[in-house]
Amino acid sequence: MAYLSRNPAPIPTPVRIGLIGSGWMGAFHAESIARRVPDAVLAAIADPNLESAEALAKSLGTAKVTASADDILADPEIDAVIIASPARFHAALISQAAAAGKHVFCEKPAGQGLDELDAALTAVEAAGVHFQIGFNRRYAADFQAAKKDLAAGIAGQPQLLRSLTRDPGNGSIPNAARVPAWTIFLETLIHDFDTLNWFNEGAEPVGVYAVADALVEPALRDQGFLDTAVVTVRYSNGAIAVAEANFSALYGYDVRGEVFGSKGMVQAGRSTETAARRYTAEGLAADTPRLNVELFRDAYTDELADFTAVVRARRDGTPPPSADFTLTPGAADARRALAVALACIESVKQGGPVAVPAATKAGV
Amino acid sequence: MAYLSRNPAPIPTPVRIGLIGSGWMGAFHAESIARRVPDAVLAAIADPNLESAEALAKSLGTAKVTASADDILADPEIDAVIIASPARFHAALISQAAAAGKHVFCEKPAGQGLDELDAALTAVEAAGVHFQIGFNRRYAADFQAAKKDLAAGIAGQPQLLRSLTRDPGNGSIPNAARVPAWTIFLETLIHDFDTLNWFNEGAEPVGVYAVADALVEPALRDQGFLDTAVVTVRYSNGAIAVAEANFSALYGYDVRGEVFGSKGMVQAGRSTETAARRYTAEGLAADTPRLNVELFRDAYTDELADFTAVVRARRDGTPPPSADFTLTPGAADARRALAVALACIESVKQGGPVAVPAATKAGV
Amino acid sequence: MAYLSRNPAPIPTPVRIGLIGSGWMGAFHAESIARRVPDAVLAAIADPNLESAEALAKSLGTAKVTASADDILADPEIDAVIIASPARFHAALISQAAAAGKHVFCEKPAGQGLDELDAALTAVEAAGVHFQIGFNRRYAADFQAAKKDLAAGIAGQPQLLRSLTRDPGNGSIPNAARVPAWTIFLETLIHDFDTLNWFNEGAEPVGVYAVADALVEPALRDQGFLDTAVVTVRYSNGAIAVAEANFSALYGYDVRGEVFGSKGMVQAGRSTETAARRYTAEGLAADTPRLNVELFRDAYTDELADFTAVVRARRDGTPPPSADFTLTPGAADARRALAVALACIESVKQGGPVAVPAATKAGV
Amino acid sequence: MAYLSRNPAPIPTPVRIGLIGSGWMGAFHAESIARRVPDAVLAAIADPNLESAEALAKSLGTAKVTASADDILADPEIDAVIIASPARFHAALISQAAAAGKHVFCEKPAGQGLDELDAALTAVEAAGVHFQIGFNRRYAADFQAAKKDLAAGIAGQPQLLRSLTRDPGNGSIPNAARVPAWTIFLETLIHDFDTLNWFNEGAEPVGVYAVADALVEPALRDQGFLDTAVVTVRYSNGAIAVAEANFSALYGYDVRGEVFGSKGMVQAGRSTETAARRYTAEGLAADTPRLNVELFRDAYTDELADFTAVVRARRDGTPPPSADFTLTPGAADARRALAVALACIESVKQGGPVAVPAATKAGV
Repeated sequence: MAYLSRNPAPIPTPVRIGLIGSGWMGAFHAESIARRVPDAVLAAIADPNLESAEALAKSLGTAKVTASADDILADPEIDAVIIASPARFHAALISQAAAAGKHVFCEKPAGQGLDELDAALTAVEAAGVHFQIGFNRRYAADFQAAKKDLAAGIAGQPQLLRSLTRDPGNGSIPNAARVPAWTIFLETLIHDFDTLNWFNEGAEPVGVYAVADALVEPALRDQGFLDTAVVTVRYSNGAIAVAEANFSALYGYDVRGEVFGSKGMVQAGRSTETAARRYTAEGLAADTPRLNVELFRDAYTDELADFTAVVRARRDGTPPPSADFTLTPGAADARRALAVALACIESVKQGGPVAVPAATKAGV
Repeated sequence: MAYLSRNPAPIPTPVRIGLIGSGWMGAFHAESIARRVPDAVLAAIADPNLESAEALAKSLGTAKVTASADDILADPEIDAVIIASPARFHAALISQAAAAGKHVFCEKPAGQGLDELDAALTAVEAAGVHFQIGFNRRYAADFQAAKKDLAAGIAGQPQLLRSLTRDPGNGSIPNAARVPAWTIFLETLIHDFDTLNWFNEGAEPVGVYAVADALVEPALRDQGFLDTAVVTVRYSNGAIAVAEANFSALYGYDVRGEVFGSKGMVQAGRSTETAARRYTAEGLAADTPRLNVELFRDAYTDELADFTAVVRARRDGTPPPSADFTLTPGAADARRALAVALACIESVKQGGPVAVPAATKAGV
Repeated sequence: MAYLSRNPAPIPTPVRIGLIGSGWMGAFHAESIARRVPDAVLAAIADPNLESAEALAKSLGTAKVTASADDILADPEIDAVIIASPARFHAALISQAAAAGKHVFCEKPAGQGLDELDAALTAVEAAGVHFQIGFNRRYAADFQAAKKDLAAGIAGQPQLLRSLTRDPGNGSIPNAARVPAWTIFLETLIHDFDTLNWFNEGAEPVGVYAVADALVEPALRDQGFLDTAVVTVRYSNGAIAVAEANFSALYGYDVRGEVFGSKGMVQAGRSTETAARRYTAEGLAADTPRLNVELFRDAYTDELADFTAVVRARRDGTPPPSADFTLTPGAADARRALAVALACIESVKQGGPVAVPAATKAGV
Repeated sequence: MAYLSRNPAPIPTPVRIGLIGSGWMGAFHAESIARRVPDAVLAAIADPNLESAEALAKSLGTAKVTASADDILADPEIDAVIIASPARFHAALISQAAAAGKHVFCEKPAGQGLDELDAALTAVEAAGVHFQIGFNRRYAADFQAAKKDLAAGIAGQPQLLRSLTRDPGNGSIPNAARVPAWTIFLETLIHDFDTLNWFNEGAEPVGVYAVADALVEPALRDQGFLDTAVVTVRYSNGAIAVAEANFSALYGYDVRGEVFGSKGMVQAGRSTETAARRYTAEGLAADTPRLNVELFRDAYTDELADFTAVVRARRDGTPPPSADFTLTPGAADARRALAVALACIESVKQGGPVAVPAATKAGV
């Protein structure tokens, strides 16, 4: 053997991440960390459902397992946590993680009410930890390209905006009866509200009018379950935005954004799975993205890679990543989008337009 | 000379059309009739502005000219009229033309209030003449293809609809101060309302919420001039529709429609002038349609060809044209779209959602 | 009656056109003239098959009929002729028409050999009549847009070109056994050769290598019938072009052009019938153009409108139409494309590359 | 601390890869292995240019370094090698690696002549090691989608094929004078030949006609440097294919494939960087892919992930990966594509069509 050297450079310590919640989203984030984010390691998994946590750990072959998030928060070998528990626990977990000095990546929504969210964000601020929310569209290549164009002034002053989310489906909603009634606003359209806020950066959402109905599952209308919604959002700069969602698109997963302004328009949204096309006696055809992990696979990876890079920069004193435009969604973004979602619920209840409470509070 | 025969078949008498109003729209219709609709002739032009009428007649080399529409209505050689006067005269002219036994093609809106429109449509019905309104998008090839797909059930039960109109512009609105305040609803969005009603055939618009502002020309806001609007329309079948308009798109003329339903989605709207593409150091580029006559030239011709064919069938007892789907926009369509537009004006005044009065009245 | 005037302007005499040949193409041109070109009238039809001519005249309700083209050429009321007979008669008819002082629009190819074509074009030149050949792609909107970009230098110096034609079909070729063996070069690819020559304006085709086979109808290979071909064309400016044809595309009519050069690329070719799109559980779909009259309807009209305008300008001394780029295909274009087609036949026979004889001769 | 377990599953030994050649391509593969292929580790780097190897090792923080490939081949801790040296060393290195029992991933071409390649592939066969060649397009999502459609018979029997490569450039070719004259066939078009062979699976290339020139850098024509080429390939099933290449596309990296057959057409090729679009006063615009790592980043990763998976399955006795269609390019593919490339060189020299020697030899 005549190798010149072995390991010429010290291997930098990867960012050690603890996962809280091993459901579908948590498991996907775990896999991203373990296999697609080279600078991070999945150090531990916490889930009250230990079987779920153990199965995930086994499939990835790497992590410590516990039933209690407390173990992760107390573990000095953990740099940061991914919170992917049910939404009702988010705000409290953020507070606890911040108090334990862990950097926080939290799935949306960061809270279910402004009060609990403000408490959590105050804890984050007090602890000085990094906070990022899972608004993954900011990391989709086409949404970033659109944002870059907007930041460069291509569309001019925004006047009309649109963001829509149509989840893939087959005409019914599995277990719909068990999904919380306001999910369409708090968990789905909150993505669109962030997209609109991000695309219309510098303006604040000031009022909304929301219409929602159970059109996919009319039988659930009486239980208050809503699967289709359209929201008009007014902004402080006069721009008028529309957000739209539906829980069952038979052609797959459809997520689009559009900004029209004084100088032009930018659009984001990918309607086909690849650039391949086929032409037959039936005409032109192409495959559409069927799953959110088909449409946003790279975005899911990149949001965690960005989180990892920022945490590493904080921990090791290295330079943080940078972009030509606002990218990482943080505390103010989480609060602003939630404020819009909550106003929508109020609008549906009242049957008319309602104001959005000051979306940013002092210090956030 | 050894021709076997001369004129072996009798030339059918073309449909003889009188034009009322020789402004921009009237002049374009006149040219379509004279040069692009072989079964019709432009027989006469009436305009109080005689110079305008004479110039148009001269350019087309064919028509009789008068300052008074009465002359056209009294002319037994005229089969039908095209009403392209200012909108405030539409309803009265429809009534008069019907009373004179003339078939009527009227530019939108057919009236400015439901009462005057109902009176006009009652006259049409009493006279038994054919009535068509200038909702030209029904004749655009891509909108027809979408409608055909909808009629075939491709999208299933409609749940979400969208129609938008962005007029070409350069960032300001010439003579905006002289345009009536509610033009955006009565003359622009009325197209979109018809598109939505047509695409959601079988359902009635039941309520609207309209937001409008002066974003292109903020200086005119105080005079009530609106250049940007977003409207949410609820339908009797639960479908939620959005109509959107703006008076100054720097990239050209942008008209699109979209229907999402229980089985899929159909879209209409042409974003480039032709299929040509260019690739340079700047990337991919293509020309966008700049003028409404670029985007709708064939539609303008085809709506008049359809009108001509129906009038001819009525006059000569020949079979009328047919299609696989509802096509010709008539009295009920004119009224339904106007009802939505008027409700929008009320919604803006009230700042909240309002009901659309029963859009079809008995007998229409 | 109080009309101010009747027919205030003298109606200009339309261009009076005689049709020679009432087969499919002739009938379509006749309909274009009679119904879609307002400045022309179809004055007479000649066809040895009198029944065909009479049926066409009857359907259009206008024309004189004869079995002999001589009657049309001798008719002083005829300004110009459209030659749509079988190709083997083209060159002789051009000569006779020119000698009779008629302007000539001739379907492609203008002749089947360079000698007979040169004789015809010499007659045209001697008579001073206008000559146009039916290279309709020059009038397709997207091909014109591409040409305009090329004329503006968007692609820089051409290096690689492509033109393809795939005829709509269902996997077999009706009456293929009766179609002349070299049709694919003389009647189909001759369009592509003109497109390439036009797109690479200023350069001459200097050599070709052609490969052809019977892939759609292998049973006809022994009879020499070719339904699939690929041609490499070298140009005097070094550019390398590929022309490709096939007689049976199940997805419809596919015609495309592409020029790559030192500064970029331009593309022409329309792959869908309209801008409408549908999304279902099967993915994205759109209709493709099925017939040549779907793909080139406007081009067929516009080539005759251009012909009519030039003839009228010649006859009446009015200004001819103009464009930002070379448009009307004339004698030199007819000859250049034919020279390439004939060289292809030689290349197939020899199984190797062959030179293209000087494509333009003195005086043409 | 109360974790239930630590590392519940044994971590499988990753595939240990040695890199031979640390130039641009080698460095990129090294980064892919180190950061984007979780089941592989970059164990060592060999390059006679030790500085280059050390810099790469340092940037990735992981590998042993040597000036001699022999060290890697002798290292029992190495499972497989990536050969990314200059092409003239490929065949010999394949033979040596195989003799040392290492699985081989080799950049294209696998050899510069059929004799040396056959010797290498014989060694591979004798050693029973896995061999893969770097035809990365097989791993591009749109090319895979097209192949899947072809395997499903969507296009029917292939009749016309096209594959093109236009490298990104700015109108000149850096260091062109130092690039071997036949690079366009041996290193660029060889990709296209493999694409055509793969798309037309089951048929053999039997003859070629190649035209090539120095159109980007005419000054280098006399030195035999070719930057633009068009190749016609005949296949044993009658299909006619065209491959095209150019070394300087100002709009970026352009790679496309198309198969037309008895039932339809499939196309691959991505013309824009993302799905984002911008509309301004200039019209529609979008960014084009500028670099090969923009266009093929995922393909570069996936070809190595596939290689890793196969090597691991061989080593550990686990099931190999599978697909609905032929995927991994191996010995026969390397030979078949090289045979076409070499025939092209002969065709250019002779100025006429030449036969392709039996592309597969016994045992390969």
